[in-house]
Amino acid sequence: MIRTAAVVGTGLIGTSLGLALTRHGVRVHLSDTDERAVRTAAALGAGTVGRQDGPVDLAVLAVPPGQIGAALLRAQRDRLADAYTDVASVKAYPEQAVALAGADPSSYVGGHPIAGRERSGPLAAREDLFEGRSWVLTPSDRTSPVALNRALAMVALCGAVPVIMDSRRHDRAVAYTSHLPYVVSTLLAARLAHAPKEAHRLIGQGMRDMTRIARADVGLWNDTLRANSASLTPVLAGLADDLRALIAELEGPQQHAGAQPGVAADPLSGVAARATAGLELVRSRPATGDRPRRTPVLVALSARPGELAELLDAVTDFGVDQDQDLAVRQTPGSDRLVAELRVPPLVAEPLLRTLAATGWADRLVPPPAQPSAQPPARPPAQPPAKSPLPLTR
Amino acid sequence: MIRTAAVVGTGLIGTSLGLALTRHGVRVHLSDTDERAVRTAAALGAGTVGRQDGPVDLAVLAVPPGQIGAALLRAQRDRLADAYTDVASVKAYPEQAVALAGADPSSYVGGHPIAGRERSGPLAAREDLFEGRSWVLTPSDRTSPVALNRALAMVALCGAVPVIMDSRRHDRAVAYTSHLPYVVSTLLAARLAHAPKEAHRLIGQGMRDMTRIARADVGLWNDTLRANSASLTPVLAGLADDLRALIAELEGPQQHAGAQPGVAADPLSGVAARATAGLELVRSRPATGDRPRRTPVLVALSARPGELAELLDAVTDFGVDQDQDLAVRQTPGSDRLVAELRVPPLVAEPLLRTLAATGWADRLVPPPAQPSAQPPARPPAQPPAKSPLPLTR
Repeated sequence: MIRTAAVVGTGLIGTSLGLALTRHGVRVHLSDTDERAVRTAAALGAGTVGRQDGPVDLAVLAVPPGQIGAALLRAQRDRLADAYTDVASVKAYPEQAVALAGADPSSYVGGHPIAGRERSGPLAAREDLFEGRSWVLTPSDRTSPVALNRALAMVALCGAVPVIMDSRRHDRAVAYTSHLPYVVSTLLAARLAHAPKEAHRLIGQGMRDMTRIARADVGLWNDTLRANSASLTPVLAGLADDLRALIAELEGPQQHAGAQPGVAADPLSGVAARATAGLELVRSRPATGDRPRRTPVLVALSARPGELAELLDAVTDFGVDQDQDLAVRQTPGSDRLVAELRVPPLVAEPLLRTLAATGWADRLVPPPAQPSAQPPARPPAQPPAKSPLPLTR
Repeated sequence: MIRTAAVVGTGLIGTSLGLALTRHGVRVHLSDTDERAVRTAAALGAGTVGRQDGPVDLAVLAVPPGQIGAALLRAQRDRLADAYTDVASVKAYPEQAVALAGADPSSYVGGHPIAGRERSGPLAAREDLFEGRSWVLTPSDRTSPVALNRALAMVALCGAVPVIMDSRRHDRAVAYTSHLPYVVSTLLAARLAHAPKEAHRLIGQGMRDMTRIARADVGLWNDTLRANSASLTPVLAGLADDLRALIAELEGPQQHAGAQPGVAADPLSGVAARATAGLELVRSRPATGDRPRRTPVLVALSARPGELAELLDAVTDFGVDQDQDLAVRQTPGSDRLVAELRVPPLVAEPLLRTLAATGWADRLVPPPAQPSAQPPARPPAQPPAKSPLPLTR
């Protein structure tokens, strides 16, 4: 349980944290070496400027990784709080720095919310920044249960999902998931500086998305990369190897049947399978619940142009999304197309009723039998007079 | 003027093009070697399946770069159209391929819309995919004015901005703006396949954004990279150099005053300035108009916690965006903060009136005198009784 908290450092993360805790009734005390930043955070409603009389329940050191050891020592001497955590995206280095600085490690637990924005500073803060995100906590063997539980209470108040990890395992993981993409985004932006003048007219959304995180604070990132260089260097070396191999593929005349002389066959053949595996990892969600179940609703299409667009119009108010919830299949041995709308189980029945009532009755196709515990949605009680498709069951 | 068109290849681009042209009354004829794809495109309203009797005004070869030469030769023999263009993201290679295939180069002009999505296929199509985007046309010295003008008419119907370039200059530019980010996105995804198991819980929005374009069709990209290897290879070599230098920075003990032994000082120092320059290039927009003008509205803040949040609430219906339109300044020599709301010129006056009527009257600060032709917005006729801030003019 946290009733009072201190946030040291009112940048993006510290201010967002202050907003989230304040919303839940925690009295938050803000401080920052930058007076404008701390007063802006207070004006946004993240807490009040200055400390309280006596220690707060939890102080969050939202300062760069290189400053955590000294900041903890100072805060402990001032009796700022009973327990401490930080928010740096490296965790082994601060753990060592705490010991080296001579601070008390028992009241400290390392923390790292997996949340951020390309903008920094208090004005970029959002009270819902951490909602649904993972928030790693890295207790050392010296961390007291009180410190860990106070940090867990904070994570819960922010609506985040706590993940407890060893600090070194954390650092090896974020070298891939956070530090690698930042480095690559920055190298990509730097490379653009060499592009011919007219290139800017050809920049599309892909390049914009890929250079977004390069806009983050360079000073903070210098500090972060330095603090995690041991885990990051081998990851970057692996990237360099892949890059070299791809360049060789593009330069070299790998002769295949059908390949033109002097021209690479499939330059991506060396990385494509691993890229697919990596994309699966990106797609998989933090385990806050299973993926929502979907029930297929099948509608046979005629050859009339624009008919699928009409169907999508008819179902748009049921939340059917063309990108997520639609597939078009060709039934084997038939020349008919079938649109498959994938909707939440409870939506299937009213959707079928609406389709039946709006001229699609004789196009509804019963879904193939499924070995599922839950019976699949069926067309409305009155079956269509004739089934236009040979069913696959 | 285009009244009839043919789209050969009904993937994402071809189908989107069919939708856009159909919306503007062009009769579009669709074909694809994949029967399901072409019929899905037709069902979406992108046109009708099959060709018309006699040549159409313009045929668009929306096929992979490696197939354009043969597709053009076949289409010309069939008298499919009077004029032809394509949509491949490389342009010198198809130009050569057209000549090598023995096709007539006069009725052909290369084209490349700077638009795409990470999804492919007709279901990913959008009729507004090209709106406001650049669409490069690369006429050769053999291209006829008729072919160029038909392609320009198509670009206009799609709401895109035509950019005429030499095919080789185009290819050097897209090596940076399109092919480089795709390669990097793919290498990043591939690297993730080597990450420790627990890493997937630490994947944040940055990594998601940066691997988005790696989801595109690998076969098409193999074809594209192969076709532009001459321009792309030096760009990738430059990236490899930067990456090597950064790894050396992280590994090597560059000794600075204050640096810890064995620890890099500022690992990003070699790329930070160029990254900033590159980000400027990304930020700059295609020249379809100047950036909208903004008028500052200044509001002095007291020390009351949450006051800025209240101000933002009060102005939210004027479209003030915390990310884009807000800054907080500290007046030199004063301890007061001033919020600067930047609003469209015509919004400033009603905004000031609303603020004056809702309790902010004595907080409104006249803006400093500007040498602009347009007079700056002023506070309402009745000036506040006392100005809480020393004005800077």
